[in-house]
Amino acid sequence: MDKKKKNTTKQQQKQQSKVRIAFLGGIGEIGKNLCVLESDNDIIIVDCGIGFPDEEMFGIDLVIPDFTYLEDNADKIRGLFITHGHEDHIGAVPFLLMLLDIPIYATALSIGILENKLEEHTLDFNPRINRVKAGDVIKAGDFSVEFINVNHSIPDSCALAIDSPAGMIVHSGDFKIDTTPIESEIINIARLSELGKKGVTLLMCESTNADRPGYTPSERTVGNSLSDIFIKSASKRLIIATFSSNIHRVQQIINLSAKNKRKVAITGRSMLNIVDAACKLGYMKIPDNTLIELSDIKRYRNDQITVITTGSQGEPMSALYKMCFSERSSIELSSDDVVVVSASAIPGNEKLISKIVNELARRNIPVLRDLSLGVHVSGHACQEELKLMHAMIKPKYFIPIHGEYRQLFAHRELAKSLGMNESDIFIGENGSVLEISSQTAKWSNPITAGNVMIDGYGIGDVGSIVLRDRRHLSEDGIIMVVLSVSMRYKEIISGPEIISRGFVYVRESEELIDELRDTVIKTIAPQLKKEKIDVSQLRNKIKDDLGKFINNRTKRNPIIVPVILEE
Amino acid sequence: MDKKKKNTTKQQQKQQSKVRIAFLGGIGEIGKNLCVLESDNDIIIVDCGIGFPDEEMFGIDLVIPDFTYLEDNADKIRGLFITHGHEDHIGAVPFLLMLLDIPIYATALSIGILENKLEEHTLDFNPRINRVKAGDVIKAGDFSVEFINVNHSIPDSCALAIDSPAGMIVHSGDFKIDTTPIESEIINIARLSELGKKGVTLLMCESTNADRPGYTPSERTVGNSLSDIFIKSASKRLIIATFSSNIHRVQQIINLSAKNKRKVAITGRSMLNIVDAACKLGYMKIPDNTLIELSDIKRYRNDQITVITTGSQGEPMSALYKMCFSERSSIELSSDDVVVVSASAIPGNEKLISKIVNELARRNIPVLRDLSLGVHVSGHACQEELKLMHAMIKPKYFIPIHGEYRQLFAHRELAKSLGMNESDIFIGENGSVLEISSQTAKWSNPITAGNVMIDGYGIGDVGSIVLRDRRHLSEDGIIMVVLSVSMRYKEIISGPEIISRGFVYVRESEELIDELRDTVIKTIAPQLKKEKIDVSQLRNKIKDDLGKFINNRTKRNPIIVPVILEE
Repeated sequence: MDKKKKNTTKQQQKQQSKVRIAFLGGIGEIGKNLCVLESDNDIIIVDCGIGFPDEEMFGIDLVIPDFTYLEDNADKIRGLFITHGHEDHIGAVPFLLMLLDIPIYATALSIGILENKLEEHTLDFNPRINRVKAGDVIKAGDFSVEFINVNHSIPDSCALAIDSPAGMIVHSGDFKIDTTPIESEIINIARLSELGKKGVTLLMCESTNADRPGYTPSERTVGNSLSDIFIKSASKRLIIATFSSNIHRVQQIINLSAKNKRKVAITGRSMLNIVDAACKLGYMKIPDNTLIELSDIKRYRNDQITVITTGSQGEPMSALYKMCFSERSSIELSSDDVVVVSASAIPGNEKLISKIVNELARRNIPVLRDLSLGVHVSGHACQEELKLMHAMIKPKYFIPIHGEYRQLFAHRELAKSLGMNESDIFIGENGSVLEISSQTAKWSNPITAGNVMIDGYGIGDVGSIVLRDRRHLSEDGIIMVVLSVSMRYKEIISGPEIISRGFVYVRESEELIDELRDTVIKTIAPQLKKEKIDVSQLRNKIKDDLGKFINNRTKRNPIIVPVILEE
Repeated sequence: MDKKKKNTTKQQQKQQSKVRIAFLGGIGEIGKNLCVLESDNDIIIVDCGIGFPDEEMFGIDLVIPDFTYLEDNADKIRGLFITHGHEDHIGAVPFLLMLLDIPIYATALSIGILENKLEEHTLDFNPRINRVKAGDVIKAGDFSVEFINVNHSIPDSCALAIDSPAGMIVHSGDFKIDTTPIESEIINIARLSELGKKGVTLLMCESTNADRPGYTPSERTVGNSLSDIFIKSASKRLIIATFSSNIHRVQQIINLSAKNKRKVAITGRSMLNIVDAACKLGYMKIPDNTLIELSDIKRYRNDQITVITTGSQGEPMSALYKMCFSERSSIELSSDDVVVVSASAIPGNEKLISKIVNELARRNIPVLRDLSLGVHVSGHACQEELKLMHAMIKPKYFIPIHGEYRQLFAHRELAKSLGMNESDIFIGENGSVLEISSQTAKWSNPITAGNVMIDGYGIGDVGSIVLRDRRHLSEDGIIMVVLSVSMRYKEIISGPEIISRGFVYVRESEELIDELRDTVIKTIAPQLKKEKIDVSQLRNKIKDDLGKFINNRTKRNPIIVPVILEE
């Protein structure tokens, strides 16, 4: 075979080689990001994040992807590649490792955060965690994965360029384009452009801000805004709440404090943890004699102190929340403080944040939080940045990822406005599988995907029936009817006792409870006269009659649980 | 006594006469507005609204003010004056009338809406409802109440000028300054300025948008934006969701439809009700041959139809929600529709609205809702309008009302920026009483105020204990342990049965349930050997032991209810 022919054959092979792209999370939602790339022989995984319980998921702590497909194909998995250290990208790693021993590739800060998490879980093996840095290329079966530096609200974030049997696949990770980043490099435009020039089969690109026009401002602009606040509030103590993982933000606050001759105290468990990890790994540099213990702040005047705290989302267990509502907080707020919330509300958290802001207002403590003050910028690309990414990568096919449907669709419209054909853009759902070659892309049979809910130690033992009951209980409470019946003598031996929780305040509703008991007795009497007592039928009858009575009387529908002990 | 002396004495009397201003709701919250004005002899009430349950009020339908103070002083009450027909201003009237027969004064549309409400309640008397119009003055004991036309997002809204023993008191109601209103008059600037010129002792002014700079745009601007949408979407069916009470908005949509040769179908119970009432009262004019039945829309092409619907807040029972999620909706949406959400999200509703927008995006149905599109304007005054109100009224004292604390405080800052002394501005809380004369103002002893929660037919029978149980049940569920014990033979006759709801899915957790039963038996055994069985102690022991076991095993804390039948 001459060289030319050989090349052609190889090229033909490559043209026919298929890669399947599947998502176990992150499509139609912000959270639970997990992308599976599968060739004939090998699987690699990009990210493994948690999702956040919605308001219907009563009592659920967090949500992880359904790992069934990965368990079923464990022998093909060559590695898990982490783009960055946010919860929605690494939070579910411990749960995956409890099932499968997979090699992990991540940058140093992501590993620092991940190792913190793994300490809370018991694994019966030492996880194989490999530290990489932007620029590294990892061979993983049929795939070869290159880490590319991007800007984001946590340092050490990467996009991935994945050389595959179907050609080059680019996964954006979470990114923005920050031309003046804090203590880090601007997103690697040169490399991304080079990839585009060589030809990219598929771009998977995040969509968080795909419905926002313009550019996301640089993280540095927040420093300028905060600097103004340091000047205007020179006589006050500053309490600044932000996301603990936004290390560059925290760094800027520390630098400004040092410059303005303030000591810095840090409060909140996650803030302390991450600052500690970031300092150890060299991602944060704290000027000498700046950091003090929280317990020492009383030794300084208000104008000599900055407190950096968790609680920017109004979380009820956070340090800021405790300052506002707990009598046992080590920081007592007064009108000599200025509280800065250097964050925007994650959708769903508006009311929690308002609760704090209202309480501060009630106590006459100034709060600075308006986005117009410039005390926060997003970590995600807005439309103009997304356009730049598309223009650099020039992909043949495109999957908008990391967004609710309104954002995925806005991202599709954006790609269409740049000239892409709608038929080359693929929006599926979790579990959808896109099969691509360098020349084709089409939907294939979906795989198992879904929410696995974590409640305490329980993984997946709370399902839709338990949630339905919790919702029902939360709305109308429960009534238990307990009695023991002699099957031989056909009489009630004990009870009926009426016990309720979450229905009415029993001490003030004795009359109603008596009526409920009477209703039950009325239901039972004729049943006991029957030749054979059907206990299951009796239970249903009690449930029906009592339910109707209660609904007529109160317009409520508590869960009714009749318990009949047979003797 | 010569005339001059007589006047002086009268003036002195007036200077010393006191009026007490109290709030049973609306301070530190949006909702539950109710203001009490009390002289030595008489009480008048301004507004009587409902509040909306917060996320902690599990299963609660709505919240009304605590009427205790009004019941205790029933013989002094001379009237209830309604500023406008929104729920947070009239919603609790039926509940007040169930306790007290008070004369009500309101404008025609407010009465129309109120009468609709009263049909759902049974009163044993004919309520004394008096129709007034802007400009009318009602004498009520020591008070004399003048209705003054203002602009707002519902027609027929009024401010009140209340001549009192302590001088003139102005209550703004809810307002904006709309110089180009739809089919109504601009706010009565002449009369408000005249009052200010004569001297106003106290201004109570709404604060909803006190933290927003600038002016609220005119309702007419929404018409212009919608007009653009009618042109751009000329080939599509238009589905427009808005607040049913925003009659001018609905009128504009109908007018635009008629102009663009579209028929209008209306869906959603409250939308149908209010359009009906507004037409009857002459607040809405529907061009001939425009309105059609919803069932007839199939007889027209898509470009000939506008559907006006409820559901702009994503309410799960609304018509728009059903179009998105129910298979039984009479409107089947497709990508030949354009959905317009002509409303902004009331805080707390963002996720509900997102749910609808995401579903529409998923199904490829365009949604127009961004405020930047101008499809909605607020009904409340922004900072520049509030400044105008203050400049016109020039009050001696000021109480910011109708707002959360952050808004009340923003309003105070605004008043201070106009030159008011902080000591003349009063921010209290619900129940606070401000005692004013024409020359003095000071806090007095507070009165009873609070949230009375409505759940089904129950008024106030759900209190903090029931809510605490509902929250607990919603998070971890409940476990019942039922057994019968022979007190004579000291043995278990029947059980223990373990029954749970909202804890784990029992069919998949048989092993765990068995362990729970074993734990209970282990707890009981030694107790039965005692000389005297203390049942209450036994119950507590079961609760403790089982609670500890479950927490160790699952890290959850269900409510545990042991029921021991003694025989």
